[in-house]
Amino acid sequence: MTSQASEPRVPVGTGQTGTRVESDSMGTIEVPAEHYWGAQTQRSLIHFSIGDDRMPTELYHAYAQVKKAAALVNEADGRLDPALAQAIAEAADEAVAGHLDAEFPLYVWQSGSGTQSNMNINEVLANRASQLLGGEIGAKRLVHPNDHVNLGQSSNDSFPTAMHIATLLAIRDHTLPQLDSLAAAIHDKAVRWADVVKIGRTHLQDATPLTVGQEWSGWAAQLRAASSRLERSLEAIGELAAGGTAVGTGINAPAGFGEAIAAKLAELTGLPLRTAPNKFAAQASLDGIVAVSAGLRGVAVAAMKVAGDMRWLASGPRAGLGELKLPANEPGSSIMPGKVNPTQQEAMIMVCLQVIGEDSIVAAAGAQGNFELNTMRPIIIDNVLHSARILADAAEKLRIFSVEGTELDTERIASHVDRSLMLVTALSPHIGYDRAAEIAHKADAEGTTLREASLESGVSAADFDRYVDPASMVGDPRADVERS
Amino acid sequence: MTSQASEPRVPVGTGQTGTRVESDSMGTIEVPAEHYWGAQTQRSLIHFSIGDDRMPTELYHAYAQVKKAAALVNEADGRLDPALAQAIAEAADEAVAGHLDAEFPLYVWQSGSGTQSNMNINEVLANRASQLLGGEIGAKRLVHPNDHVNLGQSSNDSFPTAMHIATLLAIRDHTLPQLDSLAAAIHDKAVRWADVVKIGRTHLQDATPLTVGQEWSGWAAQLRAASSRLERSLEAIGELAAGGTAVGTGINAPAGFGEAIAAKLAELTGLPLRTAPNKFAAQASLDGIVAVSAGLRGVAVAAMKVAGDMRWLASGPRAGLGELKLPANEPGSSIMPGKVNPTQQEAMIMVCLQVIGEDSIVAAAGAQGNFELNTMRPIIIDNVLHSARILADAAEKLRIFSVEGTELDTERIASHVDRSLMLVTALSPHIGYDRAAEIAHKADAEGTTLREASLESGVSAADFDRYVDPASMVGDPRADVERS
Amino acid sequence: MTSQASEPRVPVGTGQTGTRVESDSMGTIEVPAEHYWGAQTQRSLIHFSIGDDRMPTELYHAYAQVKKAAALVNEADGRLDPALAQAIAEAADEAVAGHLDAEFPLYVWQSGSGTQSNMNINEVLANRASQLLGGEIGAKRLVHPNDHVNLGQSSNDSFPTAMHIATLLAIRDHTLPQLDSLAAAIHDKAVRWADVVKIGRTHLQDATPLTVGQEWSGWAAQLRAASSRLERSLEAIGELAAGGTAVGTGINAPAGFGEAIAAKLAELTGLPLRTAPNKFAAQASLDGIVAVSAGLRGVAVAAMKVAGDMRWLASGPRAGLGELKLPANEPGSSIMPGKVNPTQQEAMIMVCLQVIGEDSIVAAAGAQGNFELNTMRPIIIDNVLHSARILADAAEKLRIFSVEGTELDTERIASHVDRSLMLVTALSPHIGYDRAAEIAHKADAEGTTLREASLESGVSAADFDRYVDPASMVGDPRADVERS
Amino acid sequence: MTSQASEPRVPVGTGQTGTRVESDSMGTIEVPAEHYWGAQTQRSLIHFSIGDDRMPTELYHAYAQVKKAAALVNEADGRLDPALAQAIAEAADEAVAGHLDAEFPLYVWQSGSGTQSNMNINEVLANRASQLLGGEIGAKRLVHPNDHVNLGQSSNDSFPTAMHIATLLAIRDHTLPQLDSLAAAIHDKAVRWADVVKIGRTHLQDATPLTVGQEWSGWAAQLRAASSRLERSLEAIGELAAGGTAVGTGINAPAGFGEAIAAKLAELTGLPLRTAPNKFAAQASLDGIVAVSAGLRGVAVAAMKVAGDMRWLASGPRAGLGELKLPANEPGSSIMPGKVNPTQQEAMIMVCLQVIGEDSIVAAAGAQGNFELNTMRPIIIDNVLHSARILADAAEKLRIFSVEGTELDTERIASHVDRSLMLVTALSPHIGYDRAAEIAHKADAEGTTLREASLESGVSAADFDRYVDPASMVGDPRADVERS
Repeated sequence: MTSQASEPRVPVGTGQTGTRVESDSMGTIEVPAEHYWGAQTQRSLIHFSIGDDRMPTELYHAYAQVKKAAALVNEADGRLDPALAQAIAEAADEAVAGHLDAEFPLYVWQSGSGTQSNMNINEVLANRASQLLGGEIGAKRLVHPNDHVNLGQSSNDSFPTAMHIATLLAIRDHTLPQLDSLAAAIHDKAVRWADVVKIGRTHLQDATPLTVGQEWSGWAAQLRAASSRLERSLEAIGELAAGGTAVGTGINAPAGFGEAIAAKLAELTGLPLRTAPNKFAAQASLDGIVAVSAGLRGVAVAAMKVAGDMRWLASGPRAGLGELKLPANEPGSSIMPGKVNPTQQEAMIMVCLQVIGEDSIVAAAGAQGNFELNTMRPIIIDNVLHSARILADAAEKLRIFSVEGTELDTERIASHVDRSLMLVTALSPHIGYDRAAEIAHKADAEGTTLREASLESGVSAADFDRYVDPASMVGDPRADVERS
Repeated sequence: MTSQASEPRVPVGTGQTGTRVESDSMGTIEVPAEHYWGAQTQRSLIHFSIGDDRMPTELYHAYAQVKKAAALVNEADGRLDPALAQAIAEAADEAVAGHLDAEFPLYVWQSGSGTQSNMNINEVLANRASQLLGGEIGAKRLVHPNDHVNLGQSSNDSFPTAMHIATLLAIRDHTLPQLDSLAAAIHDKAVRWADVVKIGRTHLQDATPLTVGQEWSGWAAQLRAASSRLERSLEAIGELAAGGTAVGTGINAPAGFGEAIAAKLAELTGLPLRTAPNKFAAQASLDGIVAVSAGLRGVAVAAMKVAGDMRWLASGPRAGLGELKLPANEPGSSIMPGKVNPTQQEAMIMVCLQVIGEDSIVAAAGAQGNFELNTMRPIIIDNVLHSARILADAAEKLRIFSVEGTELDTERIASHVDRSLMLVTALSPHIGYDRAAEIAHKADAEGTTLREASLESGVSAADFDRYVDPASMVGDPRADVERS
Repeated sequence: MTSQASEPRVPVGTGQTGTRVESDSMGTIEVPAEHYWGAQTQRSLIHFSIGDDRMPTELYHAYAQVKKAAALVNEADGRLDPALAQAIAEAADEAVAGHLDAEFPLYVWQSGSGTQSNMNINEVLANRASQLLGGEIGAKRLVHPNDHVNLGQSSNDSFPTAMHIATLLAIRDHTLPQLDSLAAAIHDKAVRWADVVKIGRTHLQDATPLTVGQEWSGWAAQLRAASSRLERSLEAIGELAAGGTAVGTGINAPAGFGEAIAAKLAELTGLPLRTAPNKFAAQASLDGIVAVSAGLRGVAVAAMKVAGDMRWLASGPRAGLGELKLPANEPGSSIMPGKVNPTQQEAMIMVCLQVIGEDSIVAAAGAQGNFELNTMRPIIIDNVLHSARILADAAEKLRIFSVEGTELDTERIASHVDRSLMLVTALSPHIGYDRAAEIAHKADAEGTTLREASLESGVSAADFDRYVDPASMVGDPRADVERS
Repeated sequence: MTSQASEPRVPVGTGQTGTRVESDSMGTIEVPAEHYWGAQTQRSLIHFSIGDDRMPTELYHAYAQVKKAAALVNEADGRLDPALAQAIAEAADEAVAGHLDAEFPLYVWQSGSGTQSNMNINEVLANRASQLLGGEIGAKRLVHPNDHVNLGQSSNDSFPTAMHIATLLAIRDHTLPQLDSLAAAIHDKAVRWADVVKIGRTHLQDATPLTVGQEWSGWAAQLRAASSRLERSLEAIGELAAGGTAVGTGINAPAGFGEAIAAKLAELTGLPLRTAPNKFAAQASLDGIVAVSAGLRGVAVAAMKVAGDMRWLASGPRAGLGELKLPANEPGSSIMPGKVNPTQQEAMIMVCLQVIGEDSIVAAAGAQGNFELNTMRPIIIDNVLHSARILADAAEKLRIFSVEGTELDTERIASHVDRSLMLVTALSPHIGYDRAAEIAHKADAEGTTLREASLESGVSAADFDRYVDPASMVGDPRADVERS
């Protein structure tokens, strides 16, 4: 998930051990000397050690892009000394590349604006940039976390900017590709099995036939549509709050800063970014990311159906539906020897339930804004990035370890078609619904085949065989498969 | 759901048509003259006609009990003229009996304290009581909505009191009995089928055998445990806010009013009611009812599993599991003649999902209290009473129209056992897990029976037949069924 | 919500009383003779009287469009006698116009495919069309519910088609217009108050200033963006399942039926409808409508923030924030005379919580599909149409009864600005963050103004007055308001 | 969270590097030689690397207790060689003590029965016990994962047993004590401020007075009631599935094994454990733990209200309510110097939203059982233990870093009381509701005090001063505080 990058020009590391005194506007505090972080990071570690949930690394990678962009815009505008700006940009590049990951230890459950994570990266980049400039770390550093690294920014506008970028990158680079690969693997099977006639099931009950390819084409189509909706939802977070600073008015940032930093970030990331037209909405709400979360949920809803179908169709092997044979990746039971379970599907279903639930958290948090700020940012970004990740990973594992190796039990499939009563539907246009229903009930009650019951009910054998031909009841499966 | 009651002494009805002028502290307003309600009810109808969701009738029945109890306590304490008190009590009795249901038209989406519903019942009882006393309706009535009917109360303490009573009655009188009947019907089947050996399924895959009775005993046990937890959750709402008045301090109510009205309400309703020990918590939170909602959800979670199992076990008839035969209550398809679907189970599953979702609404609303009041009362009582009702009704319909008429396909059940590979589990203690697994895989791969594969793998026929006896692999089903 | 329509050519009504015998493939049953419905409707009323939730009327209006379109396409294709087709179309027009609303009594909790509602409309249109043709009602009717009204259709494809159309119409004609009006009313206030400087608040704490117009512009922008996302979500349900019949293969419908009926429905409704490219996905999933539900939720998330801000800003009048004066529509308390409460905002917040919760139900139900069908349709359409309606109604009431009449307490607003300490932010670029923080802490601790503390800390009066000018700290409010 | 334990008798460590060949019923596989885990653990690591969510360590500590208890029961029953049993017990003790934590690397998203985690601990204990016996690790080990460590058990019964024990311990030892401490700290403040009269607020609007102590007593009472409900919910998970083995029948376990292992586990853990009366319900459902999750949610609902009140009451310092002064633990803003934010409250609110959302996941997963197994165990235990932990930790941090250091702004509090109009409520019983309302409206409109408006409206000064005495309007605060 990190950018490829050459090794740092100056080796990463403070070269110190023990503790170092750092200070902020509230006074001094000791920090572990081997780390670049400063006073506010340390305070947060003390006050917010809740659970073991750490702010996601991807967020800091994105945040570093914001800091770099700000430095370059500030430099271009003459508000920041070029040497300082370049050092900040260099340090930010290192952070983007993952070289500074160990410097971002903060918990998710912290200040709701993300101020502490903003200060974490401000402090780390300030110390590291100072080091890159040949200066000291700590009190006498050449670069100030607020006055230089945070110049023209507030947590209130920069944190949601980083949230948007981190989310866009995670979904563009990981979630969408994995979903596409899964859908493609399913589509491949649909093509392969386009003509294998099987019995349909509605309400779990036997229905009229379709082909295995048609069924799988429906899965591929569902996943692709959901994936496509997720992709379109990203449009909502291409707008950036940066430039609004403290409350949306842009205080302490020059006119045009929002536009300039958005352009610079678009350039740095290759994402279609633009400045938000209304900064008050952009900072007081997280509605865009709530919409993206709904996009992830949409995929989970679709994937849960697909995984569920797979495991039911593979149920058995003897006392279930038994139409699919999933690869056996591990022993299925600690007590029942030889058992094979649909574990990839179970993992996917659990992931889907988790994503659906995390989306509900995101929505609830999204509704908690007050006045000029929504202070539910850490919980939202943590859940969204988590959902994007596990959905992608589960799609990958499901594809590789189950979908690709799935085979059909064609004998069982054919047997289900042969014994079905719902082929009576093809008789219905010729003899009427009510009479057709009588025949089906008769066969069911007497345990006979549909053909037997039909003939006993006065349908001629010729008519029966002409009308009731499963292969002619499935429409145009090749065309259907093409369209998935 | 309404109390049995003799006919009103004075016929219900204002005898008026057209409109009548009513007034409140904000001025005058015209109300439909055929109704008893007054100015504030009318204002609410104008300002809050949102959707078509009306405050549940059961709430007003409970609220009338509160008004009656207050009148009687006030009378006993000498704060209310006995004639007025008795007239209010008589009007309240009529409301409890359902004779005034048409007078309570307000929407759910109104003042979050329920003030408008409180004023609705105050106004209706004031006019009706005045009429019962031989007085007029409207401006010159003998009974004042606030000064008499609401005496010693506020919406802030009386509305949650009515919520608790309405919920207790609904669950005690409807939900719990229906759940018990459903569990009993399932238990009866468990007893009947205690010895029918069937194949077990874990991960949807064939597993070791159990009896049909054991499986159904699990369903009964699940429902009974959930129902019992629901019943215990009611303890949380036996505590009443009444007596706290505006903010919990009891202003404008005499000392001891809370205790007295709780005792009177216990007497009137037969419920185990007591005054809440801390009125600030009782008025500012709805935590007790959130806990009851969780109890309803617990039942839904259990019922969803039971209904789900039933429909899967009834799947087929030819290409599914086919172990159960559900009663056919209606044609299953508009296009497929003769189709029978598990519609009662589907209805129950939808009801369960609705209840689970409504519970999440209740919890979200329960967390929205501020300072001395939670203004999410109408949404909470509407969802809780709705969930309690549909769960009960669905349990009744599922029992009568599906569970009681369900039969077994014993032939199919036996065939599943015969063909199962997981009977190998019984060999495992004798030949070791790994060798047993080999045999199961061999039978699966070769499509043979477990016995065949075992003998080919060196197990003696005598040993196989001794160890692998499905009927001896199910433990003590009679005892299990007893315990459900 | 119903179409304008001339009076029916033949008066609506069977002219019968008592009961009439109707029959279906399961046998005969008595139905109330004054109604047009038939055997399957009656069976459903018996088996599914769960709660008091009836399938929404809007669904039947949309379903009637589907039946009309099918009849016309079948007529054009020569599969249906023109006289029958025209009679069905005429009856359907009456249903669309609302003349047959009393004929659709079914509960939400029924067959998960909606089969019973499909048969309800089939039966009603069959009997009514027969009557329009001069024929009888009941057993000897000229028009058959399945063989004629349902021709070329299944519940499995027609019910989701009706769901899509009903949802599109409800949101296009009611929800979106009401949201737009609310946003416009808020925007009008933003324009009016564009230059009124007020204190910003982040973390509920005093922050740098903005104007009232900017704050309101943020609300308008939030609502408009959410509304726009809702509108775009509708794209997902422009695709129709019609033509897939029982399982998606189109059995018993001619080739091209899906395209033809979609075109006809587009013509009849004016909606951008088209046939779904993959009918297996269209019938086995409800993913499109889950996405629309997320759009409704997105509006609720935004509206909850806006309503919340309004009620907090109006808090007081003496011990709260007190910046807004909301119209007093009703007495606020049954015990505290003269109290005015933000009841419209409370109603909106409850509506938002309900919508958010109903969306979670929709998502959970959307994930419950199996094989060729998702049997959670009734619960989904009921929740979606309900959410669309209450959101629209609440937006209307909030606008008319609160937003339009809201006024400012400009004195209070100015006083908050004057006393603020966060104006120190404007000093920060000139004296550095750390020194500025010291000044703010000093003023806070000593209870002095920021100016006093600054001067005592060595800032010159001239500098202070030059840098700390609230009106110059708000950027360009006119431009911001324009962009909302 | 781990038990205190002496150092292991044999140092932990395999003494190997590189890889080692392990095998299971599916064949051989290479595992990292420095670890004790075997083939199935390794397979799971390959197939399920989804996200970075690892099965919680607490689960393995509890699972080790189950393994120890099983070994001891098996030994006592003569089914397991005493030397093997003692070695397994010793290894299990090491696991309980946390010495083997590094050996449990599996992901949450795995087999839904938890089989892989069961095999993980079986493999680790088998190898470690073999080592303790002086034997080898791997293929030639003296102790078999299935035949010895898993003897008498299945994942299906042992995993939920471990879930129950882990949850009971986490809540008993961490969540409940921290909640009690928080409630006690709040209660202490209530006692201290029992007599400080403040203005009440309902609907966020000024209401009648209460004391600060009464308000805080409400918070303490809410938390204590919720905490008490959580404690009572634990009763549901004191019942253990152990003894049911594969499907609940107890196959391959001797009669009485369930009772014996429950008794042994009660002895080992000090928990009130007993065997579940119906093993089919115990293995096919997770309803008990869903109920415990609801208990956690109940605490979150209460804590969210308390934290919310605190941050609103501390809002300001100049333009908010300003009644509370929270400790300043860190700089509040990266751009606004001197800002202090209610960050502990924000963290708590986020934690509460997370817990509420995770509970919804637990409920959804709890409803997903099929037949003899619910395969949603890993997701449920992960969410429940996570919620229990973060709720406890957040309670601790809120108490230490905010509640204990909170002070009152008594001047502001008094000023709010003095200016309030809702003291008019005390006049209402003497002059009637309608006239009292007029006075309040008059004062509001004219910006005067209530006294001024009253006197102008004809109330005598003597009457006013007699009736309107805030200190006499708060009831008996000392008694209220006692009862919280």
